[in-house]
Amino acid sequence: MVGKDAVLDDCAVLALGDTFLVATTDMLHESTDFPEWMTDREIGWMSAAVTLSDIAAMGARPSLVLLAAGLDSPSRLEEILTGARDCCCTCGATLAGGDLDAHRELTLVSSGIGFADRPVRRSGARPGDLVGIVGIPGRAQAALEGYSRFREYLSTPKPRIGEGLALAAAGASSMMDISDGLLASLEDMRQASGLGYAIESEKIPGVPGVPDDVALRFALLGGGDYGLLFTIPPGKSIPDMPEIFVIGRVIEKSQIIVDGRPVEGTGYQHHWD
Amino acid sequence: MVGKDAVLDDCAVLALGDTFLVATTDMLHESTDFPEWMTDREIGWMSAAVTLSDIAAMGARPSLVLLAAGLDSPSRLEEILTGARDCCCTCGATLAGGDLDAHRELTLVSSGIGFADRPVRRSGARPGDLVGIVGIPGRAQAALEGYSRFREYLSTPKPRIGEGLALAAAGASSMMDISDGLLASLEDMRQASGLGYAIESEKIPGVPGVPDDVALRFALLGGGDYGLLFTIPPGKSIPDMPEIFVIGRVIEKSQIIVDGRPVEGTGYQHHWD
Repeated sequence: MVGKDAVLDDCAVLALGDTFLVATTDMLHESTDFPEWMTDREIGWMSAAVTLSDIAAMGARPSLVLLAAGLDSPSRLEEILTGARDCCCTCGATLAGGDLDAHRELTLVSSGIGFADRPVRRSGARPGDLVGIVGIPGRAQAALEGYSRFREYLSTPKPRIGEGLALAAAGASSMMDISDGLLASLEDMRQASGLGYAIESEKIPGVPGVPDDVALRFALLGGGDYGLLFTIPPGKSIPDMPEIFVIGRVIEKSQIIVDGRPVEGTGYQHHWD
Repeated sequence: MVGKDAVLDDCAVLALGDTFLVATTDMLHESTDFPEWMTDREIGWMSAAVTLSDIAAMGARPSLVLLAAGLDSPSRLEEILTGARDCCCTCGATLAGGDLDAHRELTLVSSGIGFADRPVRRSGARPGDLVGIVGIPGRAQAALEGYSRFREYLSTPKPRIGEGLALAAAGASSMMDISDGLLASLEDMRQASGLGYAIESEKIPGVPGVPDDVALRFALLGGGDYGLLFTIPPGKSIPDMPEIFVIGRVIEKSQIIVDGRPVEGTGYQHHWD
C-alpha cells in the first residue's frame, strides 16, 4: 500500500482536482536531535522547520502544521510553541493544532500539509540535467565546530519555501532537502532515480571565513543546513535568486562523482543503540 | 494564531473550495498508552485508530495517515506497520508514509487527513438537541477489568467512520469521539459549547453480561472505546444504524446531569510525573 515513491519522497502526495496535496511528518527527540545549548524556542522552531523544509523540497506552499509534543516538563510548552509558530509564520503556514502528552524524553513530531501545482519528486532527473543547490552548505556544521557566527543556521534554519516554489515553477526535474549533508542527499537522490550525479567542488560556495578544505568537508558531510538539492533540464531558466548555485550534472552511470572521482554517499545517520 | 476552535476540536479544519480538509495528530507511547499484553500489531492498529477516530468524529472521510515511529527496537517495525495498515484499510484510508527514528521508549505519532462536506465540531449544539452515542460504551473498560471476551474493543477499536459520515449528513450539530469515558467527553463538549448535557442512565446500553451498576461505571468512566458522542436537532432523522443510541438532551445550564443529578465530568487523564 505504501508505494516506493511514497517511501522515498519527503512527502506523500495526493491529487486533488487540479492541485496536489503534500503531507509529511517528522519526529525529533532530545537525546539525538537537540544539542544541549539549544533553547526551547529554538527546539520548537526546529521541529516545525524540518517538516516545512520537506514541503519546500516538494515545490509546495505550506498550509498547516500540527505539533504533537511529548514533554518531560509542562513548563517547556510555551517557548516550544512560540518557536514553532514563529517558524510557521516565516513560511506562510499556520500552526493549527496538535496533541500534548507527558513523556520521559522531550519528543516532538510535526506534521505538515502543503499544496503544489506540480509536486517535484526525488526521482525525476534525466541524464544531462544540471544539479543545483539552494543555500551555502556547511554553515550549520561550521557552527557545530566552533564557528559561532553561523549559529542561527544550526539553531533556526529557514525552510526554503520561496526557492522551492520558484524551482518547481521553473521546471526542476527533481528536488529534496539537504538535512544530513550534500553527499548523503546526493546518495538518496541516486537511489531514487537510479542515475548518477557528478559535481565539481569548486562550484560549491564556501562557508565564508572557513579554509577551503574545511568548508568542503562541512558542505559534503555536515548536517543541519536544510538547503535544497535539485536538478533541472539545461534548457530551463534557473530562478535568479541569491543562494541558488549550479554545481554539476546528472549522468547515466549510477554513481556520485566529485571532481571526477567516485565517492560513497555518506553523512549523519541515526544508529540503533 | 491557534484559534479556540482549533485547539478544542479533534481536528484542524481548512476550507478547500466546496469541501473541507480536516487534519489531526496523536502521540502514543509505551509506558502510558500500550498495556503490556498488547501485541505490536495491536499497537500499530491503535496508533492509526486514535487518529482515524478523530477524523470520524468530524464527520469526515479519512484519506491519508502518516506514522512517525520512534522504535526501541527495529524488529518491531513490521508488525506495527501491519497493524496500522490494517486499521487504515478498514477505514478506507491509506498509510501513505511516515518517519522512522530510534527512541528509548516506543513512541508512535499518527497524523491523518480527511475530507468533509460539512465538518461537525464539538461546539455546535443548541438547547433541546438530542444527545446520542455510537457504540456500547464500557466494553474496553470491561476487557481491562477481566471480561476478556471484550478484548478486541480494547486492543483493536474500530473507528466509527460510517456512523460519523451518516450523522454529519443527517445534520448532527456537534460530535467528538469518546476516548476517555462518556463523562469526560460530555465535559469536553460542555466546555466547547458552554451548554449542559442531561443524560438518562437507563438509555445507555449495558455491556452484555456485566451487572448493570458495573456496566454503568464502565460506560461513564471507562476509557478506550472510541465510540462517538453527538448531538442532533430533534427534527432531524437519526441514521438507522445498529449501534446509535439517544441518551439525553442538551440543556441551557452548563452542567452534566445524570438521572437528574449534576456530576463532575471525569475519566482517564494524563498526569505529569
